[in-house]
Amino acid sequence: MPDPSVGIVGASGYTGSELVRILSRHPAVRLAAVTSESHAGKRMSDIHPHLEGVCDLELVKAADLGAVDLVFLALPHGVSMDFVKTRANGGGRIVDLSGDFRLSSAAVYERWYGKAHACPERLDGAVYGLPELNRDRIAGAPLVANPGCYPTSAILALAPFLRCGLVSPEGLVVDSKSGVTGAGAAAKAATHYPSVNEDFKAYGIATHRHTPEISETLEAASGAAVELIFTPHLLPVNRGILTTAYARAKEGVTQADLEGAYEDAYSGEPFVRVRTAPPSIQAVRGSNFCDVFVKLVPETGRVVAVSAIDNLVKGAAGQAVQNMNIMMGIDEQAGLDMVPLSP
Amino acid sequence: MPDPSVGIVGASGYTGSELVRILSRHPAVRLAAVTSESHAGKRMSDIHPHLEGVCDLELVKAADLGAVDLVFLALPHGVSMDFVKTRANGGGRIVDLSGDFRLSSAAVYERWYGKAHACPERLDGAVYGLPELNRDRIAGAPLVANPGCYPTSAILALAPFLRCGLVSPEGLVVDSKSGVTGAGAAAKAATHYPSVNEDFKAYGIATHRHTPEISETLEAASGAAVELIFTPHLLPVNRGILTTAYARAKEGVTQADLEGAYEDAYSGEPFVRVRTAPPSIQAVRGSNFCDVFVKLVPETGRVVAVSAIDNLVKGAAGQAVQNMNIMMGIDEQAGLDMVPLSP
Amino acid sequence: MPDPSVGIVGASGYTGSELVRILSRHPAVRLAAVTSESHAGKRMSDIHPHLEGVCDLELVKAADLGAVDLVFLALPHGVSMDFVKTRANGGGRIVDLSGDFRLSSAAVYERWYGKAHACPERLDGAVYGLPELNRDRIAGAPLVANPGCYPTSAILALAPFLRCGLVSPEGLVVDSKSGVTGAGAAAKAATHYPSVNEDFKAYGIATHRHTPEISETLEAASGAAVELIFTPHLLPVNRGILTTAYARAKEGVTQADLEGAYEDAYSGEPFVRVRTAPPSIQAVRGSNFCDVFVKLVPETGRVVAVSAIDNLVKGAAGQAVQNMNIMMGIDEQAGLDMVPLSP
Amino acid sequence: MPDPSVGIVGASGYTGSELVRILSRHPAVRLAAVTSESHAGKRMSDIHPHLEGVCDLELVKAADLGAVDLVFLALPHGVSMDFVKTRANGGGRIVDLSGDFRLSSAAVYERWYGKAHACPERLDGAVYGLPELNRDRIAGAPLVANPGCYPTSAILALAPFLRCGLVSPEGLVVDSKSGVTGAGAAAKAATHYPSVNEDFKAYGIATHRHTPEISETLEAASGAAVELIFTPHLLPVNRGILTTAYARAKEGVTQADLEGAYEDAYSGEPFVRVRTAPPSIQAVRGSNFCDVFVKLVPETGRVVAVSAIDNLVKGAAGQAVQNMNIMMGIDEQAGLDMVPLSP
Repeated sequence: MPDPSVGIVGASGYTGSELVRILSRHPAVRLAAVTSESHAGKRMSDIHPHLEGVCDLELVKAADLGAVDLVFLALPHGVSMDFVKTRANGGGRIVDLSGDFRLSSAAVYERWYGKAHACPERLDGAVYGLPELNRDRIAGAPLVANPGCYPTSAILALAPFLRCGLVSPEGLVVDSKSGVTGAGAAAKAATHYPSVNEDFKAYGIATHRHTPEISETLEAASGAAVELIFTPHLLPVNRGILTTAYARAKEGVTQADLEGAYEDAYSGEPFVRVRTAPPSIQAVRGSNFCDVFVKLVPETGRVVAVSAIDNLVKGAAGQAVQNMNIMMGIDEQAGLDMVPLSP
Repeated sequence: MPDPSVGIVGASGYTGSELVRILSRHPAVRLAAVTSESHAGKRMSDIHPHLEGVCDLELVKAADLGAVDLVFLALPHGVSMDFVKTRANGGGRIVDLSGDFRLSSAAVYERWYGKAHACPERLDGAVYGLPELNRDRIAGAPLVANPGCYPTSAILALAPFLRCGLVSPEGLVVDSKSGVTGAGAAAKAATHYPSVNEDFKAYGIATHRHTPEISETLEAASGAAVELIFTPHLLPVNRGILTTAYARAKEGVTQADLEGAYEDAYSGEPFVRVRTAPPSIQAVRGSNFCDVFVKLVPETGRVVAVSAIDNLVKGAAGQAVQNMNIMMGIDEQAGLDMVPLSP
Repeated sequence: MPDPSVGIVGASGYTGSELVRILSRHPAVRLAAVTSESHAGKRMSDIHPHLEGVCDLELVKAADLGAVDLVFLALPHGVSMDFVKTRANGGGRIVDLSGDFRLSSAAVYERWYGKAHACPERLDGAVYGLPELNRDRIAGAPLVANPGCYPTSAILALAPFLRCGLVSPEGLVVDSKSGVTGAGAAAKAATHYPSVNEDFKAYGIATHRHTPEISETLEAASGAAVELIFTPHLLPVNRGILTTAYARAKEGVTQADLEGAYEDAYSGEPFVRVRTAPPSIQAVRGSNFCDVFVKLVPETGRVVAVSAIDNLVKGAAGQAVQNMNIMMGIDEQAGLDMVPLSP
Repeated sequence: MPDPSVGIVGASGYTGSELVRILSRHPAVRLAAVTSESHAGKRMSDIHPHLEGVCDLELVKAADLGAVDLVFLALPHGVSMDFVKTRANGGGRIVDLSGDFRLSSAAVYERWYGKAHACPERLDGAVYGLPELNRDRIAGAPLVANPGCYPTSAILALAPFLRCGLVSPEGLVVDSKSGVTGAGAAAKAATHYPSVNEDFKAYGIATHRHTPEISETLEAASGAAVELIFTPHLLPVNRGILTTAYARAKEGVTQADLEGAYEDAYSGEPFVRVRTAPPSIQAVRGSNFCDVFVKLVPETGRVVAVSAIDNLVKGAAGQAVQNMNIMMGIDEQAGLDMVPLSP
């Protein structure tokens, strides 16, 4: 039996190129097709010179994708849901890396994304693809909504404490710092080199679209309403998200309780490493690891949880392949054993 | 009458070299002497090649400093208080850039700095040199304790709201990110280029020595006990601190109230700019400006205040010269009109 | 008598903003007007947030510039010559920062810039504004062509040796490395942050437009035909050009001869520092200095000359103000005493 | 039959950690032991946090290395030759990553390294481990001298032209730019973050120890005496070397001739990619690729050849594993299929 085939729709961006990096070395699937509306006719390595000799597939239009067993959608939000709507019948299973199928309802989507949802009928069937929380439901899902990069880092840092009732669901602060690839491959004034290098700033304060994704998932984990504030910042690095999250410990909670909650949640997880020193983005770069760390300040009962991921890997393409592995019944670590590149 | 003379003790580090950058162009004082125990006999420009042709003073030992009207101490904490003790009689006025005279008592000092205070008799007479809070007391002080870099950014962001009772003094979060010059000019494993570049991490979580300095000064501003958590992070840039501070607004407080508090506090301040968009460290680099910004999230009553400074200027040498100007009755902006270098 | 007035045409880019940084603190001229076709109606500080409180002039269209004593043209090549043509009569003296008036003839211009020269009648009267070579002619010039950034670094490194006949004019290699601000303020794919950060590459090999500017000026200095190859590279830094130039020493030339040539050329120059160790771009950042260094390899008779400048200052705006000072009979260093910002 | 076993002597530096990154995923050898004199007793992941869960071997002293089929020496020059001397009998085959066995004679070694060679009796039997030149001799060698990072980039760029007699062996210029990991993992003043970031400089002009290694290998390739000048520079990036090399084409040589020489040399090489646009270090980062490019300037007969490698991979650990594969008769690409990490 031949290996299952997969395709990448929207392969010209960073997420698409990371999918190719991983899938071109995957032992159990075959990358059959890559699409790009604007670059159709060129080879992947024309757009991404580092892939010369690694993947020389020719880009085609999405309409010419053909039949594959699973499709990765590396499309902007808004575009993804249109594709899903069209592809609905007989198009194979889907891992969507956009934000289109991550929220609980079309109403919430419309409030945060500023447009009506084009395919609300598939929202209910979509599974939020964070394996550490939803592994069982991912396995059988026809459509997996791959989590956002910031939410992956925030949720893996905080969910164990909320699930165990160790911290208050109110007054959470999620202060996140992301590398520039999180803003995509298209040149913009905000990502012009001299505007980012030797600079640092906050943006989208209290208005970023990942806010409801974090809240809803933490609420699902904790079974209670969660109140949080989320502030993203732009770091002058290519890759990586570091999230520093603050919560208030419930009465009597100890450092050991917090560490125990991480241990319970992650000791069997291949991609989450519970660290004994504050994590750094360099230690996960290029890999599918999420490093987490927690510290209780006993005098004030404050909890500081820190997590680090590579936004393009565990925050996007790597997690998407992890979801694919689960969906296809392949070893979950297949193709994902990349050692972090440090320094 | 000749211009007043000043000296820099400990001029071989970054703070010392910034003091020289500023004082070598100051219109109303004369830089008479620079000292360094380890580099005595060399010229400033041997240690700091960029100063070639700008300042070619020869470094001498501190014992050979001679009489000057004012001394800047750019020494490590612990060393500074020894110098002050020795110099006590007849040695001119002092601006100390270390942490030795910033805290309220020898007991607090010992708890956070891990050693007994060598010169407790001068603590009471030392004035905390944040001109925006303490201008009047600075003018007559014999010894000014120049604020720490993180505290300058945190206090200027939060003090106006606490002073006006607009936010709760409990549950404050100060999440700060600093460039690498904040760690000093000596090579260390933690500041080896490949260990910092393309990396980002938190350090000293809840244990950093600037914590009590922030608390005590905010308490003085608010007249109430303050409860806060402070987390510093290491940014892969040379200069700059961005602080993102979180507080809870009191009932009924509006965005206009918060902006009004900034306006009241800073409209007459030459070095604090109240911004209408989130600040960035690039926009203040090389200058004595502190940019501040505030946003209320009405749904949850959370306040996010952001400030940006150059840690070596408003966070150290620039503020020290500002204090000197006040102490000497010189125009407060003299020598400090450097335009930010951007990009 | 009021200070002379100056205007900047095309003030929204990096060169324009650097001119404002310098001119806003200049003791002897008054910045009267700034223009931008696309941003007219906004304030300088809307476009360049670091200038808030430093320069709040409103941008106007170039057509509304009005009468000023001297105009800086911070325009793209091609646009500049159109402006000069229009402004020809009664518009004040001009310092043009584009490449339009730097070459010897309309024919050479057309070959390298790919278009006919729009204003050839003013080429003869334009003076190449490198004060270290042409100070006397600059003083009286109605139109000064401010040198390119790469040429400034290459010419200051090599001209003294060619002028004294110490090296062969054949077989010169000019290997230059520039920070990203040299590519301008507009966002482009080539200057997207992740495309530059942690990267390094050559571009425009043997085809860059600064090639004939370097050759012609070195030929004027040496009185002989010069044969050179020029390779620019893109450095992941904001500012700075380092040029490593290679030449072949003539028979019998010594290290002392080379150093003597630098000494003769530059000992009276306020902005060229002859160094005894290889220069670095950090040591000149933000200043109008050019640092130069030379080493002879006696075994092979090769000469390595290295120079460092800030491409936006000595390579653009600073040199333009230096030219203005000369043209107006002002102290040549006025407004240009910025100390390098390091680190 | 079990997989062959290998050990790494001196595993605490960057080269050692890269060897672990590669060998921990190698399909046909087993990493049996890692040594460090200063860190013995710690785990690899204590020293290199990114290796947590990847390699948790405990470091031992070199004396406790035990029997392995092949040893990688990731030691400083000078130390390596002492180890080789001691290990001479029965210690397995050796790939030495230091400079101790790369030069042709003890006399040349002493001239450039400033000390007598401790083990001259093994110089003759050592093979210079550049597979693209010496594959056949590597296969049977007991001791392989793994090439230096700069020489790898310079030789792969120039050797094909010299071998084919397309360029003159005189007047070569090798202008190289390296990331900071090339300077090693130990913190030094020269690699303190603020001293490198936003800076760029040349160092070791005409005195760098890689000079004779480049010359001798190019002489072996060309069969003629080679005269070159080599200038290394320090780039503000973690990884990567870009070499821009200049030569003079022989009469009548065309661009097609040069490209043909590359094609002949490299079309069968798995790790050298002949590019049609100037290479960049980002496109090879983390991989064992060397990208090369050549351009003839017909007017002047100058040749510009550019190459890019990751200094820690093709310039060190990757090439060492490539040599090991050849020595052991394993598929040369085994364990080396890492896709470049870009951006």
